[in-house]
Formats: sequence, C-alpha cells, structure tokens
Amino acid sequence: MRLSDTKPFLAHPFDHNKLKEECGVFGVIGVTDAANFVALGLHALQHRGQEAGGIVAYDAENGFNSARRFGYVRDHFTKKSLMETLPGENAIGHVRYSTAGNKGNTAIRDVQPFFGEFSMGGCAIAHNGNLTNADTLRKELIERGSIFQSSSDSECIIHLMARSLHKNHTNRIKDALSRVEGAFSVVAMTRTKLIGVRDSRGVRPLVLGKIGDGYALSSETCALDIIGAEFVREIEPGEMVVIGPAGIESSFPFERNEPRPCIFEHVYFSRPDSILGGQSVYETRRQIGVELAREAPVEADLVCPVPDSGTPAAIGFSHESGIPYGMGIIRNSYMGRTFIEPSEQIRNMGVRLKLNVNRALIEGKRVILVDDSVVRGTTSRKIKEMILDAGAAEVHFRIASPPTAWPCFYGVDTPEREKLLAATMTAEEMREHLNVKSLKFISIDGLYRATGIKSGRDNAAPKYCDACFTGEYPVEPRDQIAKGFKLAAE
Amino acid sequence: MRLSDTKPFLAHPFDHNKLKEECGVFGVIGVTDAANFVALGLHALQHRGQEAGGIVAYDAENGFNSARRFGYVRDHFTKKSLMETLPGENAIGHVRYSTAGNKGNTAIRDVQPFFGEFSMGGCAIAHNGNLTNADTLRKELIERGSIFQSSSDSECIIHLMARSLHKNHTNRIKDALSRVEGAFSVVAMTRTKLIGVRDSRGVRPLVLGKIGDGYALSSETCALDIIGAEFVREIEPGEMVVIGPAGIESSFPFERNEPRPCIFEHVYFSRPDSILGGQSVYETRRQIGVELAREAPVEADLVCPVPDSGTPAAIGFSHESGIPYGMGIIRNSYMGRTFIEPSEQIRNMGVRLKLNVNRALIEGKRVILVDDSVVRGTTSRKIKEMILDAGAAEVHFRIASPPTAWPCFYGVDTPEREKLLAATMTAEEMREHLNVKSLKFISIDGLYRATGIKSGRDNAAPKYCDACFTGEYPVEPRDQIAKGFKLAAE
Amino acid sequence: MRLSDTKPFLAHPFDHNKLKEECGVFGVIGVTDAANFVALGLHALQHRGQEAGGIVAYDAENGFNSARRFGYVRDHFTKKSLMETLPGENAIGHVRYSTAGNKGNTAIRDVQPFFGEFSMGGCAIAHNGNLTNADTLRKELIERGSIFQSSSDSECIIHLMARSLHKNHTNRIKDALSRVEGAFSVVAMTRTKLIGVRDSRGVRPLVLGKIGDGYALSSETCALDIIGAEFVREIEPGEMVVIGPAGIESSFPFERNEPRPCIFEHVYFSRPDSILGGQSVYETRRQIGVELAREAPVEADLVCPVPDSGTPAAIGFSHESGIPYGMGIIRNSYMGRTFIEPSEQIRNMGVRLKLNVNRALIEGKRVILVDDSVVRGTTSRKIKEMILDAGAAEVHFRIASPPTAWPCFYGVDTPEREKLLAATMTAEEMREHLNVKSLKFISIDGLYRATGIKSGRDNAAPKYCDACFTGEYPVEPRDQIAKGFKLAAE
Amino acid sequence: MRLSDTKPFLAHPFDHNKLKEECGVFGVIGVTDAANFVALGLHALQHRGQEAGGIVAYDAENGFNSARRFGYVRDHFTKKSLMETLPGENAIGHVRYSTAGNKGNTAIRDVQPFFGEFSMGGCAIAHNGNLTNADTLRKELIERGSIFQSSSDSECIIHLMARSLHKNHTNRIKDALSRVEGAFSVVAMTRTKLIGVRDSRGVRPLVLGKIGDGYALSSETCALDIIGAEFVREIEPGEMVVIGPAGIESSFPFERNEPRPCIFEHVYFSRPDSILGGQSVYETRRQIGVELAREAPVEADLVCPVPDSGTPAAIGFSHESGIPYGMGIIRNSYMGRTFIEPSEQIRNMGVRLKLNVNRALIEGKRVILVDDSVVRGTTSRKIKEMILDAGAAEVHFRIASPPTAWPCFYGVDTPEREKLLAATMTAEEMREHLNVKSLKFISIDGLYRATGIKSGRDNAAPKYCDACFTGEYPVEPRDQIAKGFKLAAE
Repeated sequence: MRLSDTKPFLAHPFDHNKLKEECGVFGVIGVTDAANFVALGLHALQHRGQEAGGIVAYDAENGFNSARRFGYVRDHFTKKSLMETLPGENAIGHVRYSTAGNKGNTAIRDVQPFFGEFSMGGCAIAHNGNLTNADTLRKELIERGSIFQSSSDSECIIHLMARSLHKNHTNRIKDALSRVEGAFSVVAMTRTKLIGVRDSRGVRPLVLGKIGDGYALSSETCALDIIGAEFVREIEPGEMVVIGPAGIESSFPFERNEPRPCIFEHVYFSRPDSILGGQSVYETRRQIGVELAREAPVEADLVCPVPDSGTPAAIGFSHESGIPYGMGIIRNSYMGRTFIEPSEQIRNMGVRLKLNVNRALIEGKRVILVDDSVVRGTTSRKIKEMILDAGAAEVHFRIASPPTAWPCFYGVDTPEREKLLAATMTAEEMREHLNVKSLKFISIDGLYRATGIKSGRDNAAPKYCDACFTGEYPVEPRDQIAKGFKLAAE
Repeated sequence: MRLSDTKPFLAHPFDHNKLKEECGVFGVIGVTDAANFVALGLHALQHRGQEAGGIVAYDAENGFNSARRFGYVRDHFTKKSLMETLPGENAIGHVRYSTAGNKGNTAIRDVQPFFGEFSMGGCAIAHNGNLTNADTLRKELIERGSIFQSSSDSECIIHLMARSLHKNHTNRIKDALSRVEGAFSVVAMTRTKLIGVRDSRGVRPLVLGKIGDGYALSSETCALDIIGAEFVREIEPGEMVVIGPAGIESSFPFERNEPRPCIFEHVYFSRPDSILGGQSVYETRRQIGVELAREAPVEADLVCPVPDSGTPAAIGFSHESGIPYGMGIIRNSYMGRTFIEPSEQIRNMGVRLKLNVNRALIEGKRVILVDDSVVRGTTSRKIKEMILDAGAAEVHFRIASPPTAWPCFYGVDTPEREKLLAATMTAEEMREHLNVKSLKFISIDGLYRATGIKSGRDNAAPKYCDACFTGEYPVEPRDQIAKGFKLAAE
Repeated sequence: MRLSDTKPFLAHPFDHNKLKEECGVFGVIGVTDAANFVALGLHALQHRGQEAGGIVAYDAENGFNSARRFGYVRDHFTKKSLMETLPGENAIGHVRYSTAGNKGNTAIRDVQPFFGEFSMGGCAIAHNGNLTNADTLRKELIERGSIFQSSSDSECIIHLMARSLHKNHTNRIKDALSRVEGAFSVVAMTRTKLIGVRDSRGVRPLVLGKIGDGYALSSETCALDIIGAEFVREIEPGEMVVIGPAGIESSFPFERNEPRPCIFEHVYFSRPDSILGGQSVYETRRQIGVELAREAPVEADLVCPVPDSGTPAAIGFSHESGIPYGMGIIRNSYMGRTFIEPSEQIRNMGVRLKLNVNRALIEGKRVILVDDSVVRGTTSRKIKEMILDAGAAEVHFRIASPPTAWPCFYGVDTPEREKLLAATMTAEEMREHLNVKSLKFISIDGLYRATGIKSGRDNAAPKYCDACFTGEYPVEPRDQIAKGFKLAAE
Repeated sequence: MRLSDTKPFLAHPFDHNKLKEECGVFGVIGVTDAANFVALGLHALQHRGQEAGGIVAYDAENGFNSARRFGYVRDHFTKKSLMETLPGENAIGHVRYSTAGNKGNTAIRDVQPFFGEFSMGGCAIAHNGNLTNADTLRKELIERGSIFQSSSDSECIIHLMARSLHKNHTNRIKDALSRVEGAFSVVAMTRTKLIGVRDSRGVRPLVLGKIGDGYALSSETCALDIIGAEFVREIEPGEMVVIGPAGIESSFPFERNEPRPCIFEHVYFSRPDSILGGQSVYETRRQIGVELAREAPVEADLVCPVPDSGTPAAIGFSHESGIPYGMGIIRNSYMGRTFIEPSEQIRNMGVRLKLNVNRALIEGKRVILVDDSVVRGTTSRKIKEMILDAGAAEVHFRIASPPTAWPCFYGVDTPEREKLLAATMTAEEMREHLNVKSLKFISIDGLYRATGIKSGRDNAAPKYCDACFTGEYPVEPRDQIAKGFKLAAE
C-alpha cells in the first residue's frame, strides 16, 4: 500500500550517480536526555541516509515514544517541541536511504525504528543492512497472520520476534535473527536494555562507545566523537551485546562464518574521520591514492579531486607522485534540491548545481581527476566536459576503486546490473565512452593493500565482501535469484 | 506507544460538555473518482468525528492507496495533489473522534481505515462503534504474535481476520466479527468488493444507497444526499452485505439478538436531515419538544433553543405551547480553536467564543431554554448566567433527553460515571445546582413516544439501547467490568 | 505588483452569491494583553471578512509589533507563540474581505492594519469602508514621491498623514481624512492614543465600549459582548474620538452631512445579536418578516428560512402569518473550502456542500422560502430545485430586501451592475427565471418600517444609504464614473 | 516595527564567529524564464547571505511579480508553483545576511529586492553594501512624508528615487545614488532595462556576463558559471551600466574617487572559483599560504586547513614549505541548525556539529592549522582544544589575514570593536589566549603581495579597502560616528 504521507522531495541533483548506503543506526543507554544524544549521533551519520530519520526513546514514566520524519535530522530533531516528546535515558535511532521497500515512494511507515508490543513489553529495533530472504519470510509470515505495516524488509525481524515462543526479548531477537539471511547490524531497545547485533559475516559496521556511565552503539565512530563518547571496540561479526543495568553481556548466538566486512565502506560509505576494522578510513583512502600513483602513474601538472569523496585519494596520489594537489573543482556548500531547468537549457545543469570548475587553475594544465568510483558513468562524463570546457590540456581519470560490475544485495542501493558501466564495457571501452586521455581503476589487490593487507586479495578466502567488484557473493541473494538474477558462475 | 506525529489542536471550547460520537463511516463502489465521493460523504458526516479522517481507495493498476489526516475533511481531502494519490472506483473512509484508543493523544496510526495485507490480497476496514472485549482480544492476539500498530480497539478486527484460516475475505470478516463483542457498524473493502456489517443489536446506524451503477454505504442518509445517491434501505442489525460485480449479497452470519439501536442518535448524534430507523431525525426532535411541552408546561414569553442541537425541540415546544419561538442565543459560525484567555479574565469566556446572548430579545422576558441534554452541567450553568446577565426575568430549562446517568461503552465518548451530573444528583438538586426557576427532562416514555412508539418504553423488551439513561446495558461491558465498573444491579 | 505570499484558498462554495462586507475593525486601549482582546473581537467580527486579519499592538518597551495572516482569526491569533509577539496594553486589528485592492489576488501587504513611521512616532490604522476618490489620490501621491506597498485604497490615508505638516497624529488624521471621499470607519493607534473616526454620513458602523479602566472601538456591538465590554454608544457620523490617558475627547472635524448609514447592515451584514443605530438587528430582521407577511401573504404549509441569514425574517413571517416555522433546509456546520467535483457530476454540488434539504419535512408541502436577498440568482435557483426535487408541492420565495439593482461603492463587494439579476429583469421575469410559484421582495418602504421608521422612506431625505436598491448614491462614486460607470439619472 | 512573519531559525552553530557578507545580487535581461536563471545565480551566491532571498520578475503581460522568502534559495525557489508566479524575461534577485536593519529580527519586509511604483512605472532594486549616511537620510525622508516599510538602509534609495523630479528611472537612480554615502553595488530593473551601478570606490564587487542574447549582472563570476554565462568584465568603480533593447550604455555619473575594493573579498567572502579584480580568488588564497610559509615558517609534520575557508591557503603553505598537506579536520556536509544541548554537556558541542578531528592523522603530530581569520577567537580556541585532545604534539596557527581590529561599515556584519580579539590584545597576548605553540598572521604587505601587488601596501594610496585591519576608512562612517564610534586618529 502506498501512503500519501507528506514527503519532501529530496532528490540530490548529482548524487544519483553514486552508490547509496542504506542507513545508519545509533543508540544510547544510561544518559540523561538520551534522544538528544541520538539526534546528534544520527546527524553525524547523515551521510549514510538522507531520506528520513527516526528516534524511539524510553522512559519508565512515559513509556516508549517515537518520532519519525522525512528529511534531514537537523530539520526536525533540533526542535525543542519535538525533542520534549522523547523523554528518557535510553533511545535508539535510524537514518535511512531507501534500499528495500518501495523505492522512491517511501511512506513514513517505512521509516525506522520499528516497534512491537509483546506480551513481555515493547521493543524497538533499527536495522542497517538488507535481508536476502525477506520476500520468502514475509510471504510465510503473512500466511500465518502477521500484518505488515511497511514495505521494508526489516519489518520481518519484528514479526519473527512476535512469533517466537521465548519469554524474553533477548532470546526472541536471537530467534528472529537466526531465521534471516543477509546482512544486518541491528540496534534494539527494550524497557531496560540496549542490544546490538551484527551478522556473522559482519558486512555492515557496528561499534561500541562509552559515555559517562552509559553506553552507545553506532554504525561509525564519527558519531561517537560528536557526542564526546569514547570508542571502546567494534561489535564483532556474529556477536550480540546486551547492555543493561548489570553491564554488558556478549554472546555469539549464530552459526560462525568467516568475516567479510564490506570493502566499499572503506572506499566511500564511511566518513573519513571514522575508524573501521582498526583502520583510519582517511588513511586507507590516502593510501589508495598512493597505490594508484604506483599502479597507474602519468605525467601531469595537477592532481585534482572530484570533491568531496575523491579528496583523500587525490592527496595520496599527490604525495606519492609529487604532482601538485589543487582544488580544480569547487563544491557548492548549499547543494540541495533540484532547481527548475530554464527553457534555454544550461549544459550539464545537474552537475553545475553542485560543482564548478576553478577555471583559472585548470586552464592549460594536464589534470589528473581522482574520483572514488564509476557507477553509471554519466557524472564522470559531465565533469570531464566541464574540465575540458575550462581549457584543460588533458584529462586523466584515476578511480579509487575497481570497476563496479555487480549490484550489492546487502544494504546498498545499486542500479540493476545492466546499468553499471563496468558490467557492459571493458576498461578501454569505458575510457572511450568517457572520452578521456586515460582512465585507470585501482586493482583489487591494490585496494586490499591500501586497507593494510599487504599481500593483496586472497582469492581463496578474501577478507572483505567485494561482491560489487568481483561478483562473489558471500551470502546467496536468494530473493533476487528467485526474481531472475544470474550469478557470475551461471 | 505515543507517537509525536503532527496533530493540530482541535479542542472545541464549548463542545467538551457534550457527548461525542466516535465516528462515521462511508464507502462507495463502482463510481469514477470514488475517493472524491468519499470525501464528500465524510464531510457530510463530519459531526460524527472532527479529530481526524482517512480514505483508502483501490484501483487495479495502482493497488490500495491511503491518506489519513488530523483535522477536518475539508482541510485536506479537498486538495487536488492529495486526491490524485487516491485513484480508483472503490473507496472507503472514516471520520473519528477518539473514544477508545489513547484519548487526547491520538497518533496518525490510530486513524482509520485500517489496512491488512493477507495472502489473498489486501483489505481495508472502517469501524464505527466500540468493542467491549477489545482488551481481552488484544492481549490474546499479542500473545499469539500479532503486532498492534495503534491503540485503537478496532485494530483487533484486522488481526482476527489475519488469523482466520478461511480462504476469502468475506469469511474472514465473519470469523473476526464473530469473536468481537459490543457495537460495530463496519465498512470494508477488498480489491473487488465493498462490504457492510452491522452488529446483531444494530447499535450504530448503517445505510445503503445507490449512485449511478454503483453503491454507497454510509453511517447516515445525509451523506447519501450530498453525493446525490438514492437511499435504498438500512443495513439490518446482524446483516452483512457484500457488494461486488455480481450485485449485492445479504446474509445474517451472527447469532440473532433483539435489535437495540442507540436512542441517543435520535436525540443528538445524527444530523436532523437524516432518516434513522424509518424516522425523520428532525421530526423526532421536534416531537420531543411537543412531548416536553405537554409533560412540563410553563408560563413564559419566549422559547429559545440552545443552538444548534436544541433547535428542533424548541420549535416543537413552541408549536405545542403557543409560546413564541425566538433566537435568544446566537451562535458564532466561525467557532474553532481555543483563544488565549487575556490576563483580565472574561467571565464565561469559553461559552462566549461560541455563543452570544441576543440581549434585546431576552431582556425582561421569561425564557424557556431548550437543550438536548445535560452531561456535566457546566455549560448549562454558564448559559443560564449569560441569559440572566442579559436581563431575563426567569430561566426555565427543558431538556430533550432524560437525565444522562450512565456512561456509554458502545462508541460514545462519555465522562466517567461520577462526572455525570445526573449520576450524583436528584432532579431537584440539579435544578438548584444550575440555579434556574425550573428544570425538566423529558421522561423516558416521552422520548420513546417521540420516536414513534406510542406506548412508550416496554421495560421488559425496550426497543432501543438507552443504557445512558437507564443503566441497562444490552451487551455486558466486559473490559470495563474488569476495570472495576459496577453495573446498576450490583 | 502581485506578490506570491502564501495564501490559503478560502473560496466558500456557496457564499459567492452573497454580497460581501469589506471588513471589520476593532481596537482596545488600557487593558493588559490588549492583543488577546483584539483577537477575540476580530473573531466575533469574522463574518465581516474571512480572507485575512491583522493586529498591531503597542508597548512602551517593545514598540509597535504587528502580525498579519491569511485565513480565519481562530487559525492564527490563538497561538501562544504568535500572541506573545504582540505585547502591550493598546492594540488594534482588522479582518478583511477583498473589495478594493487586487481582487482574488491579495498579498499579505494588502492586509491591514497599515502602519507608518512619522517624525512624531508611529501610527497604525484600520479602515472599514471604501474611498471613492482613491485612484485620484494615489496618482497624486505617487507623483509627489510616495511609495505604495499595497493595492489597497486604504493605504492612501497613511500617505496623506505622512504628507501633512501638522505636528501631531490627531491633526494629521483629520488632515488626511478631509482629503478622502467615500465611506470610512477608521480605528487608529499611536503610542498613547486610540482614535476612532466615522465619515460624515456614517455609512459604516463604529461603536464605543468600556472594558475595565480601558476602552474599545468596534464595528459592531457583538464584539464588545465577546470580551465582556459594556456598550457605551455609537461613534456619530462625522465624529472623531481620541481616547488617551486624559480620557475621551470628541470632535466633529469634517463638513457636516445628513447621516446615511448603510441599510444593508440591518438586512444582512451585521450579526443579529448586534445593536445598530439603536435597533436590535435581530428584531429588525424579524420585523422584516412581519412586514413581508403583510405585504405578500400566501397560503402555505411551512415557512422555511434559507439558513442562516434568512432565519430571523422567517421567524417573523411565521409569527405574523401563523404558518408553522420549520427547518426545511439544514446547514452543514463544517462548511469550508471547495471540494473536488467527481467526474460523475453531482447536481447542485456547490449548494449541497453547505445545505441539505430536510426531505421528510418538505415532502408534499407548500413551502415559503425566506431569504435575505437575491444577487445573481444562481443560488436561489439551485435551492429551489433541491426543494422541488425533495417533493415540495409549491415553492414561494419571500425576500427580506428590495431587488438589489445597483453596485455598492462604499465597502461592499458587489458584482458589476450587469450581473445583478434585478438590474436586468423585472420582478415577474425574475420569478420566471427562478421558476417559482411566487417571488416577492419587501418594498423599500416596508424595509424602512422594519427598521423603525414607521412612515417609510422619505424620498426627499432618506435616512439610510440604500443605493444598492435605489441607485441614489449619497457620495458620488468619482473613480467609478471615471471608469465609465453610469449613474441612474444619466 | 518588528513584524512577526514566520522566520525559520537559521543560526549556524559555528559561523557566528566569522565575518558575514551582507548580500549577493544577481539580475538577467533578455532570457526566457529569467527568474529560473536568477534562482540559480542566487544559489551560487548563497555563501554571501543565508538568511533570506527574493526575486522580482517582469513580464509585459503580468507586470512586476515578486517573491521573498526566509531561508535558502534551494528551499523555496526550486518549487514550480512558486516559480510560475514569476514569469518574464527580466528578473533580479538578492540574498541577504542582516547587516543593517533590525539584526536578528528581520521581517520579510526587510528582504530585498525593494520595489517602488513611480509615475513613469515600477522599479525594483537590489543592493549589496551599506550606506554610511542612512540614518540621516531616513530621518530627512520621513520628515518629508516618506513611509518606510523596512528597517533596511537600502530602502532609502527607493524613496530618494521617488522624490526625484527626473522623468526617467535612470536619472532618478543617479539622483538617488548621488545622495547616499558608503558602499553599494546595485542591480535595478525597470520594465525595459537592467541597470547596474557600483559606488565610486568599488568596495563591493559587481560583474557583467553575457548569456545567449541577454545579459547578466552578478556579485561574483561563480554565479555566471552556474548559468553558463560568459564573463564579460567587471563593472568599474563609479560606473553605471544601463542594459536595454538598444544595448549597453555606460556612464560614470558620480564624483570620481580612487578605487578601494574590499580586500576581505579575496581572503574570505568570495568563492574560490570566482575571478575578482582580474585575480583568481583561489590562487590569491593559495598565494597567501605561500607568503605565510615564507613569513612565518615552522617545523612541523602536517599542514591542516580549518575547513573550508582555510583550505587554499593551507595548500599554498604546504606547497611552499614542503610539509605534507592533510585533512586533520573533517567537516560535516549536513551542517545546519542548532541542536539541543543534552543535559550532560558535550565539550565544544557547537564546533563538533560542524567539525570533527581526524584523530588517526593528528595523533602525535606537530600540526600547522591554517585558518582565514581570527575574529572573536572563541572558535579558534575550541578547534585547538579538539586538536590537542586528539593527541597532537604541537599546534601552530597560521592566519591568512592580518589581525582584524576594526569593524566594517560597508556591508559586512562585524562585532563591535571591543569584541574583536585583535582590538584588545597584542599578537603575543592572542597566542597566550589561544594557548598555542605559535600564532602568526600574514602581514598586510604579504597580503597585498598575494593579491598581485608585488610592492606590498602603498600606505599613501592603498589599493584596497583594508579598514578592518588598519582602521583607515575610505568613507567616513558618518552615522556610526554620530553614535559614538571613534576613529583611529582620535
């Protein structure tokens, strides 16, 4: 059912060409005004989902209270009148970009956290990731009498919990998550506990922090920083932590698997000031630039990032190559909604809303453009045109990730395979398509090296989920195969 | 869970002293732009619920679409942008006043129609009435794994349907409604059918209309009039009608009971231009005035209604007594939200926002004030004061219903018993409390006579539910008794 | 200049066939929270203008503060956050319907009160009426360097004040108002004074009230009632009252003229509970009904008002004729914005949104319909059709005013002359056009009698402005004549 | 008069410590959908004013139409419903930050462009700058009968035009601008002409562009880029260009003065991709970094900008010193409104909302922080603390401008003199106050050199207005002196 709840149009004129993270999760327990901390945490995780956000807070006196809104965290969860409706010392929250669910037509009902009233009390959950058997589960649950309120795959979890015969929330969560397949980092909250769970491969990140006498769970460490929380450690793949009055209990309730955290978090999704898998995201990206300069050197006058995601790799490329770093492309800080295109059409209008060429710097120069990835290729072409229009002598593209040739089914919003440039073209065809002097992607081994694995990718047992580059899916995308998706081997 | 969805404050400064109908339901099948018809129908039923309204429409191409809003129908369901999201030839709708559910803190989730996705397709339902075993059912359903989204008792129906093992919606509705107790007039919609059901006592009204090649179901006939539909007949107590491509099927699936339609619909809830149980509501009210004039005559100069609900009875009183009818109290057409009380307090400010005394008419006169009922008595006192301040020589109250001494548990929002003036005072004590020259209520027999039952009330087998006057509840209020409510006999 | 300020669409589906009063004015001095009193007063005057409202308050500490909003008073001036921005013991306000100014495209700049900062301090003014030489004045003022902010004729007054060489506000107001022609009732406020002025013919009403130690000025007495103020007296035609710390000063600064208050205020504009020219508006209207019953008797079964404006005259007709009074037409209390017409058109949809026929009462009866006026005749036709569709045996129209054959140029929004039914048809042609059994208008003499002038209209020196009936304009409509309007004599 | 028009709270938690540009102006003539081009241009100038924006468009058929809104351009001027109200081939617009006018309490009336209806037709103007004799002019105009609608100094211009006896707009503009003192870059629009004027010292920028057959005027070249217009030239100090059907006419109607363009435009206000005075703003800033590295070298491990304004200078510093450049501070792209501070206070919360330290990069390093300026010093302290908390070994501040010791009266929002850190402390005191290892400002000569004047500042005839650093005001701040401001010499 589509629901015509008010939803502001938040199309970003330029971002549609990027892969989009599905969401970010955040929770705190044991702090006064917990919802305000969650608002700040979600603000720091806004890059993981801009479509909508929600917070559920718990207070012994007022029970569970919830607010869910379309738009940025800053636009709603900064209002006193709203935040006062969310009292309590425990709270969890979620920012989302629509992956599963009704794409482009999200209703406020699809916005997390989800909440269920069970016989032993209420429970709210926020989920980052994507379930690969959600269609199957949903069908089965509906047949058995569950009524779904959203089109989100994450809602399965709360219905599976409702069906469990266990007498406490913790066991019901274990029960429910044992039934789901795919990728999940879950933050849940009952009347007395904050619970964090990560799937056995640890595809999506989840970290633990300490704030005062309380604790925080977050998708990334940068959200611990904003609230002044101390980073304690990552939740491990397959781990469940239950934080309550008695402290933190840890268990590993699921079948063990080799960890396969998402490598694209290092390339693009996570914020550069986060620490991920023990690595500085910024340093990994800088190192990608260093590797790129070694793998694909070129004579040029200027290393120029496509801002902001290409910046650390461009810095690394400059450090390694000695070619000066400069801001050849300037980003408008006030990017936002789509403007109305005037009748007299403006060339590359979409790109111009966000980026402008620094003509004085570019003119006459051989420019190395460093970008994080090429998905459809449309934006790359437009940027290249703007650079050439501005009088660049040559344009060389250096890409901080291998060719993106496969869709992600673990919580990232990727186009269908046929729309991925690298799924249909060779590297040389792509260079011709983009019409640049040279185009080089970092190798998969180079990328692994940049993350600190000096030996590169161990093809027998790769350390990361890199399915978007290799087509090797650590968890079979069952629902997708049922819909006709073909794996590489077939 | 309380949800901080945006809700305009709709407190009516004066109405809090009246009994409030819970809701109105409306549905159409087989007409182009069905949702627009439903919007009009709900507008005509707005007096049955001002807090919120919702419409679900169905279209083979677009599926089920829904919109639910706080506030008046006219404020939302008149917008093209919204109505365009509700395409299709079938639609149902609901206006609500919060009876059950979280009083005074309704979330948009509590607004009907409710919707469930079942294995055989979706179904939307709108419910007028109140279930007397909702607490018990909800507890049981939660234990069995249902997740409630609202605090409304009506949501039980959709969960009971989801649990049913029947293979079609119609049977599942029968199944579900066989489990509930209390009062219900239900309008439901599947992909191909419009369904109307009335509980076996027929407490709440439901009528059938014909419009073009299609049909309509409505709480009252006045909503058929607004869309130009022809009034066909009432849905009978205990009847279920299923309207589909094959025409109308009627069945009586529930245990039979003696009909006991709500007598207060005649006194106050229904609009005077509706036909109810074969009677003109206006004429019944006028006749109440006639009966009152016979039962409780008084010498006076002016018969004056408390507008607007007392008007037909006042006209009848004037007709019978020969005392001239006049508008001694003028109502502000633009009533609405509560104004801020200035520091220098205005006497009877709440009442003044809605009513003003026509001083020139009242001055020096002996005035008979005709009102529909006395609930808490606070407004009656204030009106009397205004009339006396304006220089009336005497004030005589004539009330178009017997003393309201018992709460309603079948879909009307009544105060707790101890707050009902008539539950704690004799008629003479009430007169003293209101400090008027005389105060007379119509007798229960007079009221029955005004509805056309010339012999008055048959105490062995009364024709109406008159529990609010007599304390004789046709359906045991099970949840309330569990909470400590004491029946008259006890 | 058109300004795209946000403006809600407030078209009333039915009212477009009525004459519309331009505005209401209200002011208080010397009371705590003056703006709250003004909000209440404007709410009571809402029938005089529903498009927009504004309040200016003054406080020694905070200076002049203003808020102007489209929509009903209750929708904005009930909010604490807004009212707190209007501190002070003195305040004036205005509700408007767009007469002059950009019709149908009002900007918030056109909403009064207007404000001017002069060398001796600020002054706010609110104007009810219409200036007949505004075009000339505006042209002259612009040539001399005034910059107009609105399209309202009332803004001339503040610019004329700014140009005056007098050293105090009071004299500047006199100066300014000596230059304008037409109808005006003005309420103005300086830092220390509340000022009321009425043009020398007293076309629009203005009354003085006492509240605590302070005073109030209001278009009608009903707005004094709502705040509990005592009605002192009317401001006299041509009078200026200046209320300040030293009490009330009265003067008559303008050339004297015979008073010609608007007779249509008695027929339709003013609220029935107001006292106007020493008469009860309700009683005058009831008396019109009495006169009508004498002038145009008819055998019938039912006297039925077109609600709400025809109600008092219908009561009077019933009293005089002995024919029973009844509510044959029921008004929807929740009238409002225009609904979307479904594809399958509903006959007389516009009317149905506001009115419904009480079929059970009407059926088979000979019905006398009493309405206040016939302007274009379109609504009258539709109502007649609804009545006949409902099975009335005969329909007789009785109209509480003479035929409206001339436009008003003194502050009432009338259609152009050619759109007035009575300007192009004889009484019999109108009866045929409306297709009713009989159609009778009260005579002009009968109308004068109903207002208490027992001798009827003195054609040599009529006591009222009745130009809309007679075409005799007490003030020459200079701007209109320049635009081609032809007086009766021509 | 304060006006309680709705105004969203747009306080930027971090920016309050920066100097704020007053506004940006933009206009086009001779292009279809001119308002859409203006919306894009204003979006590109958003950094010059975030509080509010307005557009006036002209069309022969529809006349002048205007829309003014609080908030970002993208939030309003992207809506089709709004843009459709602004038809025409000519349009001008304005973005504002409140300098003059009621600080912190701006009403929508204060938002430009301003509009005046003159006898020869309407004229809209948009003004960037500040008039130093506005108080005097306003007083005089009010005495002569002008009514001001805003608290903005710019409104004087339109009233001076209204008072002019000239018969055409162009001469009236000359007349008006001959009376004002201070800084102004004005864009005006009549029914047939687009007019641009720059004061004789050229304090604020204004450039001319060509787009198709039409022309554009803009505060900066970056706004020409976004619409694909070609940069033609700067409007010269003291020049007036009148663009109409007959082409471009240029004149120099005012008393000539030595040009003194604002040097702070190069340091901070203008966007790095703009060309200003023939210089690339980016390159000037990079060169400032080079000069700083020469003037104030220091041994360190990392050059780190305070993003975003310090970035180009940091790049230059790195280039010159050879010390690696790195992103030690990461900026949140979703900065915005102020969040509610939780009860358990977060250290440096304001700063954290916008910036986070890249701890992994900073730890153990000697860090050179490059920022554009130090105004109050509060933010600089907080950033330093965050850097030290993150484990930096040493912090050295290098500032891309000389100490800001004097307020600006020419259109920049500066604190009062006593709140400027450099007005009350020596360089060493500031270093101690900020508690950093070293603190160095670029010299005034170094800054001039970076702008291309190799000989540095000619103290006898400086090429720029640098009053904020030197206290040498090219135009006497007459109103301020009247209010007690003391010049350096005194």
